[in-house]
Amino acid sequence: MASGKPRWSERELILNISEIFAEANSELMVGIGDDAAVVSRPETSVVVTTDMAVENVHFRTSWSSALEIGRKVAAANLADIYAMGGKPKYLTVAMAATGDEELECMLDIARGIAHEAHIAGAQVIGGDLSRGEKIVISITAIGECRNPILRSGAQVGDSIYISCLPGWSAAGLLALTKNLKGGSLDFAIAEHRAPSVDYDNAEQIAINANSLCDISDSLMIQGEQIAEYSGVCLEIDGDLITKHPDFAELLQVAEALEVSVFDLILSGGEDHCFLATGSNLKGFEIGKVLPGSGIRLLSVETPQPGWSHFK
Amino acid sequence: MASGKPRWSERELILNISEIFAEANSELMVGIGDDAAVVSRPETSVVVTTDMAVENVHFRTSWSSALEIGRKVAAANLADIYAMGGKPKYLTVAMAATGDEELECMLDIARGIAHEAHIAGAQVIGGDLSRGEKIVISITAIGECRNPILRSGAQVGDSIYISCLPGWSAAGLLALTKNLKGGSLDFAIAEHRAPSVDYDNAEQIAINANSLCDISDSLMIQGEQIAEYSGVCLEIDGDLITKHPDFAELLQVAEALEVSVFDLILSGGEDHCFLATGSNLKGFEIGKVLPGSGIRLLSVETPQPGWSHFK
Repeated sequence: MASGKPRWSERELILNISEIFAEANSELMVGIGDDAAVVSRPETSVVVTTDMAVENVHFRTSWSSALEIGRKVAAANLADIYAMGGKPKYLTVAMAATGDEELECMLDIARGIAHEAHIAGAQVIGGDLSRGEKIVISITAIGECRNPILRSGAQVGDSIYISCLPGWSAAGLLALTKNLKGGSLDFAIAEHRAPSVDYDNAEQIAINANSLCDISDSLMIQGEQIAEYSGVCLEIDGDLITKHPDFAELLQVAEALEVSVFDLILSGGEDHCFLATGSNLKGFEIGKVLPGSGIRLLSVETPQPGWSHFK
Repeated sequence: MASGKPRWSERELILNISEIFAEANSELMVGIGDDAAVVSRPETSVVVTTDMAVENVHFRTSWSSALEIGRKVAAANLADIYAMGGKPKYLTVAMAATGDEELECMLDIARGIAHEAHIAGAQVIGGDLSRGEKIVISITAIGECRNPILRSGAQVGDSIYISCLPGWSAAGLLALTKNLKGGSLDFAIAEHRAPSVDYDNAEQIAINANSLCDISDSLMIQGEQIAEYSGVCLEIDGDLITKHPDFAELLQVAEALEVSVFDLILSGGEDHCFLATGSNLKGFEIGKVLPGSGIRLLSVETPQPGWSHFK
């Protein structure tokens, strides 16, 4: 447990955090400070997602700044709303901390969350603080959505698209583990610390998509989910992937890290790229939806299985 | 960290949990299993609250069953929606666990949450699972609300009401600490393990209330919040409190525990009774709202300060 008297009081922290999350919003009837937040009714369906990040499991304070941690955890939630074809509007943040952290560290986590929320057009409207032995951040994102786009919507004949090339975050984690840096490795490390999710690309790829999800675990895992939920086979073509404008740079990074570039692309997680199927989508095409089941890889070896918290 | 191979896979757990939370609901367009849940638009404002509970801080697996832990954490969130004059509709649940727990223990937490949600008319529609060194449960409750009732609404001339007599949970915690049991102490212990929140009473007391909150920290702390936010003084009359139908029984419990019954009532937390001000409310009257600030106690000593996570 935390040792002795904490460095900040709950009241002091909440007052400071309220300022960080303060934003004029005519739809927000009651914000931080009462039992719950109240927003006036949206004109569309309501999309809700939640995601928890635990210190030393999802982030390390020695590898990421407090600001980056806040950004990363918020991005995971915001990406899930986009992955439904929705637009995030509100976040609630529950956080456990030891009380031994510097006040500025706690506020930087809040600033990181506020920063990422702002990029995605969302706002923090409520939260909770608890004591705990480790920092745990749990965010719930609430958004609007006219037409939810599900993992189960892929149709035989669809093309498969990605919004960006995944693998950078996994490469960054490897670089940190191997204590390597410089050049494109620095970009990979930055992406691992806090992915730069392109929310505009997410909105673009969703237009007319039949199925959509964000690649939080890996292209293989999320691809298998779309295949299973839709009752189809996803044929992913390694030759098409090599034509992605970022492929050459990621290949260099993979060589520096002495790993297969396709292991990074197919098995790396946490980039929060988006995977979609449909026709003529605004994304980069990597394959076709066929009758059958599972994933079929062309011109590439099956990679190591992706990462799961409990595997 | 967790030792070796976990006792259950994430997939197995999620499949089981999905069944526990499954309920027919025509408003729920997308439930557990995709990136996010989607509900069709409500006809009223949307109320949102979040609350995190950490093992050994908010609950102990040696003191509460997994079912009770689930109920207790859900109750804290559901009560906050009622405390705004709202009705809870949906919950999302994020949970960290070591992986060493029995699958049945994890499912019992889920069953406890589902049970409490059901009593309050709400349903779990999404969640997240993480690995962690301790069990951490973070719930976000989303509800509907026609007229939010705030802590800032108390008017000079209002009477002060409680929906039930607080202090039972604090008495139960003391009984557990002192290893005492029997008679009414058993009821107190049960209330500490999982409070039996009377959601009907919560709805009743909210009718025509000018201010409302749930007593999660203590009557003194939440009373002071209403006084501060409303710019008034809350005069709480000890003589009126002694006339509450449950007072005699709680007095017996306090004597068995060798504490002041008013310390329990005024400083005890986590009962999730409701505190309201207004005229002719359906609750038990304990005082008057006066000009001034803070709390004024009649016929009773000022108790020890209430409990705060970081004090």
